[in-house]
Amino acid sequence: MIKRNTGFSNLTAGYLFPEVARRRREYAAGHPDAKIISLGIGNTTEPLSPHIAKAMSDYALALSTPEGYSGYGDEQGNSALRSKIAEVFYPRMADASEIFISDGAKCDIARIQTLFGSKVKVAVQDPAYPVYVDGSVVAGAAGKNNGNGYEGISYLPCTPENEFFPDLSKIEKNTLIYFCSPNNPTGATATKEQLKKLVDFANENGCIIIYDAAYFAFIRDKNLPKTIYEIPGAKTCAIEVNSFSKPAGFTGVRLGWSVVPNELKFEDGSSVNRDWNRVMTTLFNGASNIAQAGGLAALDEQGLKDMTAQVDYYLENGRLIKNVLEGENFRSAGVVAYFTGNGPYVWAKFPGKASWDIFDKILDECHVVTTPGSGFGPAGESFIRFSSFGHRADIEEACKRLSLLKL
Amino acid sequence: MIKRNTGFSNLTAGYLFPEVARRRREYAAGHPDAKIISLGIGNTTEPLSPHIAKAMSDYALALSTPEGYSGYGDEQGNSALRSKIAEVFYPRMADASEIFISDGAKCDIARIQTLFGSKVKVAVQDPAYPVYVDGSVVAGAAGKNNGNGYEGISYLPCTPENEFFPDLSKIEKNTLIYFCSPNNPTGATATKEQLKKLVDFANENGCIIIYDAAYFAFIRDKNLPKTIYEIPGAKTCAIEVNSFSKPAGFTGVRLGWSVVPNELKFEDGSSVNRDWNRVMTTLFNGASNIAQAGGLAALDEQGLKDMTAQVDYYLENGRLIKNVLEGENFRSAGVVAYFTGNGPYVWAKFPGKASWDIFDKILDECHVVTTPGSGFGPAGESFIRFSSFGHRADIEEACKRLSLLKL
Repeated sequence: MIKRNTGFSNLTAGYLFPEVARRRREYAAGHPDAKIISLGIGNTTEPLSPHIAKAMSDYALALSTPEGYSGYGDEQGNSALRSKIAEVFYPRMADASEIFISDGAKCDIARIQTLFGSKVKVAVQDPAYPVYVDGSVVAGAAGKNNGNGYEGISYLPCTPENEFFPDLSKIEKNTLIYFCSPNNPTGATATKEQLKKLVDFANENGCIIIYDAAYFAFIRDKNLPKTIYEIPGAKTCAIEVNSFSKPAGFTGVRLGWSVVPNELKFEDGSSVNRDWNRVMTTLFNGASNIAQAGGLAALDEQGLKDMTAQVDYYLENGRLIKNVLEGENFRSAGVVAYFTGNGPYVWAKFPGKASWDIFDKILDECHVVTTPGSGFGPAGESFIRFSSFGHRADIEEACKRLSLLKL
Repeated sequence: MIKRNTGFSNLTAGYLFPEVARRRREYAAGHPDAKIISLGIGNTTEPLSPHIAKAMSDYALALSTPEGYSGYGDEQGNSALRSKIAEVFYPRMADASEIFISDGAKCDIARIQTLFGSKVKVAVQDPAYPVYVDGSVVAGAAGKNNGNGYEGISYLPCTPENEFFPDLSKIEKNTLIYFCSPNNPTGATATKEQLKKLVDFANENGCIIIYDAAYFAFIRDKNLPKTIYEIPGAKTCAIEVNSFSKPAGFTGVRLGWSVVPNELKFEDGSSVNRDWNRVMTTLFNGASNIAQAGGLAALDEQGLKDMTAQVDYYLENGRLIKNVLEGENFRSAGVVAYFTGNGPYVWAKFPGKASWDIFDKILDECHVVTTPGSGFGPAGESFIRFSSFGHRADIEEACKRLSLLKL
């Protein structure tokens, strides 16, 4: 018989979000009258912009006409969309040949591990979005979990003590560094100075940065970089992964992109962009053409305005959550809430408590689902992530209940 | 600096279809007046069923309303669609927990290699759809190309001499066997007796079959199996990969599924279905919800009728191509054309000729793009694949030109 891939036997426990969903289901089954509100998974809740939805609707209907029909497109994405993304988000920073359209950032992160294989050293921020680690384990780039994380992965603590920016001196040469800004789960958004340090370190030490910018649209502070390519030198050391999920509400529609600069090279001088092109043409077959039509509409004048309004809505939710977490009941228990106004998550520390205990307590007493910080890595222990995605009325109701939580 | 994944440096030449596209572009640039017709890539050309297109159009528009909006769905797919696929295509053969919705068969084949990792032995039919081999090379399950194929991959010739069914005795124990029926590129469709041999062999020798059934909708002979699960014993040895691309014209819309039986086990007794669930939840994020709405419409009474009509259209194209390849100019050159009426491809042997030479000759003299058989594996040399996907008028015009080809 065929052996199980050790990458899978090494993976411990379930993927974080299915586990959160399981606990929620179990609680709901035992408490059928509880009106549960989710501030857990970062899942968009507000309807699409009518402008963007109409573009997809029209495109889908036209597929039933000879003029409007289209079969396989280019696996790298519709060239008009690639150009438009370059023009809107990367002026003088990247061109269309460096933009690859995907079915979302998570899927691209999985493919990136295929690109680098099992021999690469990996470093992640701690806490971090679980897919960086889980994907590395599946790809064989990490070993067993020794209880404090997987062998072969460097965990770089990002905590209030270091302003959520890692100690780069802990990273070995020639490492693949996953870095997320605005950060999931901490919400921290790297400054230009911080990113410059990161880029310089990578260039000096032969590292490649996988820069996850999926929350870039939440950045409101004009001094904060929205893409790593604002930093000189980034094109020789960084891939940027990005998404329409959060700005356009495309979590279910599925559309994202990655930027793989032509300047980026492997040790043997060969082009990373060329191998990525091979990944996308050989192991992928293009994002849905309907979703891509939506992406184009999202990037015209009306679409950009609508996306900004949608993100503003979620940012206001975040402020409401932050305010309640600064209430007397939380303050007297020593809780500190971090919310920058430039990301979708409120990250709160409950000193001396275990994340899953606080998760269960909030679920039980407030009927509010959150995400336990420890699910994002060892340094996330004692933290809870509150997602600002939700209908305003639900957020207000959740805040009311949280204000009564006894800690 | 970071080393290139040897999986990529081992990959030789370009992926077949981009290479075909490159030669076409180059020819067109040198011959701007040539009206080139493609019988190359198996790309659907006929408009979607209005019924299916309307379902997607309505769904997309409703995403702009609070009632119609939906964010992340289950990564394994919409449960109604999983159930419907089980009910329509696998009655008494598989249930919804064994059906996983994807963004297409090609993408699932790439993920399947992640599932099995770099240590698995691989066997492919020869000729075969290139992704089985290229994906295995990228995953590290194969070595260098020694000119006659990649080290570590068993090539199983499928030729007219063995009625396109491989000699199973050449397969080692505990091998992952890729098998495609109706076959791409040969068009051969396995009988129940042949598949029973394959299933029995796999069960007796600890092999797992990756059964690519993406062309199942072309089967018109009621005695031929449309799914491997019609064969007793298949659930302990086979994964079936499938797609809406060809029956529904979803090549650009992107929707497929795989069946991973609960009975299928690794050597250690662990469940393949459970690891596949982990692949889909960790490394994927669900197919587009709009495409899934289209999938549901494709499986109701009207949708099924429309899909049958669309496939009938392509089958008639295939018959026209087969007829012209039996014309005097071809026959006198010893050309033999294989077309079963149960698959979308006409597979023709040009004795004593190299596939790429015939490809270039047909492109030059007829302005018709085909696919060289050698691109599918060593045993495809001297063959040309003619795709039956095309508008009828184009097929007729291509046939007229082919009837004048001087061989």
